[in-house]
Amino acid sequence: MSKPILTLTTDFGLADHFVGAMKGVILGICPQAQLVDITHEVLPFDIPQAGFLLAQAWSRFPTKTVHLVIVDPGVGTSRRPILAVAGGHTFVAPDNGVLSMIYSRHPHKVRAITAEKYFLQPVSQTFHGRDIFAPVAAYLAQGTPPARFGKLIQDYLRKDFDHPVRTGKRFWTGAILHIDRFGNLITNYNIDEFPQLTSRPFVLKAGFQAISRLVRNYAECEPGQLAAVVGSSGYLEIFANQASAAKMLGCGVGAPLELTIY
Amino acid sequence: MSKPILTLTTDFGLADHFVGAMKGVILGICPQAQLVDITHEVLPFDIPQAGFLLAQAWSRFPTKTVHLVIVDPGVGTSRRPILAVAGGHTFVAPDNGVLSMIYSRHPHKVRAITAEKYFLQPVSQTFHGRDIFAPVAAYLAQGTPPARFGKLIQDYLRKDFDHPVRTGKRFWTGAILHIDRFGNLITNYNIDEFPQLTSRPFVLKAGFQAISRLVRNYAECEPGQLAAVVGSSGYLEIFANQASAAKMLGCGVGAPLELTIY
Amino acid sequence: MSKPILTLTTDFGLADHFVGAMKGVILGICPQAQLVDITHEVLPFDIPQAGFLLAQAWSRFPTKTVHLVIVDPGVGTSRRPILAVAGGHTFVAPDNGVLSMIYSRHPHKVRAITAEKYFLQPVSQTFHGRDIFAPVAAYLAQGTPPARFGKLIQDYLRKDFDHPVRTGKRFWTGAILHIDRFGNLITNYNIDEFPQLTSRPFVLKAGFQAISRLVRNYAECEPGQLAAVVGSSGYLEIFANQASAAKMLGCGVGAPLELTIY
Repeated sequence: MSKPILTLTTDFGLADHFVGAMKGVILGICPQAQLVDITHEVLPFDIPQAGFLLAQAWSRFPTKTVHLVIVDPGVGTSRRPILAVAGGHTFVAPDNGVLSMIYSRHPHKVRAITAEKYFLQPVSQTFHGRDIFAPVAAYLAQGTPPARFGKLIQDYLRKDFDHPVRTGKRFWTGAILHIDRFGNLITNYNIDEFPQLTSRPFVLKAGFQAISRLVRNYAECEPGQLAAVVGSSGYLEIFANQASAAKMLGCGVGAPLELTIY
Repeated sequence: MSKPILTLTTDFGLADHFVGAMKGVILGICPQAQLVDITHEVLPFDIPQAGFLLAQAWSRFPTKTVHLVIVDPGVGTSRRPILAVAGGHTFVAPDNGVLSMIYSRHPHKVRAITAEKYFLQPVSQTFHGRDIFAPVAAYLAQGTPPARFGKLIQDYLRKDFDHPVRTGKRFWTGAILHIDRFGNLITNYNIDEFPQLTSRPFVLKAGFQAISRLVRNYAECEPGQLAAVVGSSGYLEIFANQASAAKMLGCGVGAPLELTIY
Repeated sequence: MSKPILTLTTDFGLADHFVGAMKGVILGICPQAQLVDITHEVLPFDIPQAGFLLAQAWSRFPTKTVHLVIVDPGVGTSRRPILAVAGGHTFVAPDNGVLSMIYSRHPHKVRAITAEKYFLQPVSQTFHGRDIFAPVAAYLAQGTPPARFGKLIQDYLRKDFDHPVRTGKRFWTGAILHIDRFGNLITNYNIDEFPQLTSRPFVLKAGFQAISRLVRNYAECEPGQLAAVVGSSGYLEIFANQASAAKMLGCGVGAPLELTIY
């Protein structure tokens, strides 16, 4: 029989003891867990970026994987811990919209986590990752059924960060969801929603620059030149071959991107 | 039967081959080991920070876990490699005081590691992590009894970095032990030692600022405002809600913190 | 029976979903794999640095380990994916010279990977790590014989980045292969090739400084002083005890190093 897989996506970074302490808690409950970091370098409190990164990785794992997602600006307030089941996987997260991209693409069931007997006592005011989310994820990986943790809810928080807003017949305002290691800007324009980008002229304004070229792969572009490409995730990416588009444009995560299609 | 767990805490960073080479050595000796990184981002040579981060994480792991701790400014000198048994866990480290927070809180036995047959030969002058500490930790995880590695010693190095120094009837000088991902300053003032902070007026001077407010959780404070909170580890933390206290105060790890209690 | 070990060395960083997505793919094919990161912090597109870091770590792992190495400026072009068997280990990488240090030190067999049935379909234009390299490495770890993936080739790319060029009777031009966490400059001068450095006067010019002292270990040098040492890998390293030689010299990876032996 395979070992249960448990992934972690957080904004905790790797320079603290936070991730190590959570893994200790998890292995104490579910010693056979296979732990996999998706990333811990989400920008602090950046819920859309965490939602995007999770969405790019989770479905590559085998079904029954448990995904622990903690970006939690509301720790210590009344925001609820939740668990969601979708696509044969299970997700544990604060109820702050971080799972929105999963909700909008897959049938899902969401539960409020209320069964305190699964928590680490005493629950600290500042580290629910260790005291609530990690043990719940570990018990789920261990095989405890989702229904044991709390009741189904309908009023969980949804956010719409992964769709540009239409602002006119030919105009949209989107945003940068993520900047990758290579300085590529990943936008929230998905080719499935904007198929006309492959056949019609367009202008995408980012910072002081306008991009109007869509290529098939990075190497098609001369080194240092800006263009757009359909990334491995289906989202339009702005890149500069063998250079950092982020540095060339001076844009950060969350910056607006105005699209005009002619 | 559960797999042996082996954690790693170092100042090696993740950009080098150091951690990978050590893990290769460990898996060659103990192939069934479950390897968990606590952190490799300890500031180079910062023994108090490593001691603090280890102290926050180790007790969350199941008993019998082996913890490998390498911050080793004295590599190549005559400082001894040691192993310590405390609280049902085993620790392998250079004898430079990095385990002091464990010594001061738990009954413990310390041995000097002298049994060279467990070392990787030839032992390099610059990388005892790979050649001495990693193989010893792996043999311990594999089940080799501690006594095989060397004799009990009493003169191991202890440091007192986790206690502020009293400088007057109402005055103490403490220090910043660690700055976390969110820019929170973790101090060496522990609420168990300073319970009066919850009931009496106080002023804590950090950089050019004075903090005199203790709140129960981050969200109780307006965004950008400075305050103190009792962190998940029991130590006082200086934070600014949704902002970096470290940037606001311009303080680094090791900076002094003057406390006055009225 | 031991679990198959699979290491990863990339320039993907840890802030993206890339590594997590690859691990998901691998565990879907080979659930019992023991995954070990060597590093993901190779400088973007830096093939010599990746080759060096891999070379320092791979042989520390047990035989039969599969090493996945992805630094791939040519993704989307016609550069081939390859697999190499050497020293009882298996390597999966793009054919861009990143395995050169293994070719030059060990008998080896190289195959072009052409069996598309092992790829994730559809293969994206920009993320062969996930769609080609990860599944091939996972099937190899699972026990699929190398011959199933493609034919032996002789015309794989070799690069000579790990040997200085002789420019005169007593003169060589080498380079910085890597800068480690501590600011030590790892050069491509190996003591096996330059044994006379231990017995004869020499000058090694790096940036505006000249180093002419070879010591046995870091601690032999006063804090802040520049010297050379034979690193744990056999390569000459320029270091400053408890300080960053990289900062003192202002040199980066790839910078030239002129050696004169008297």
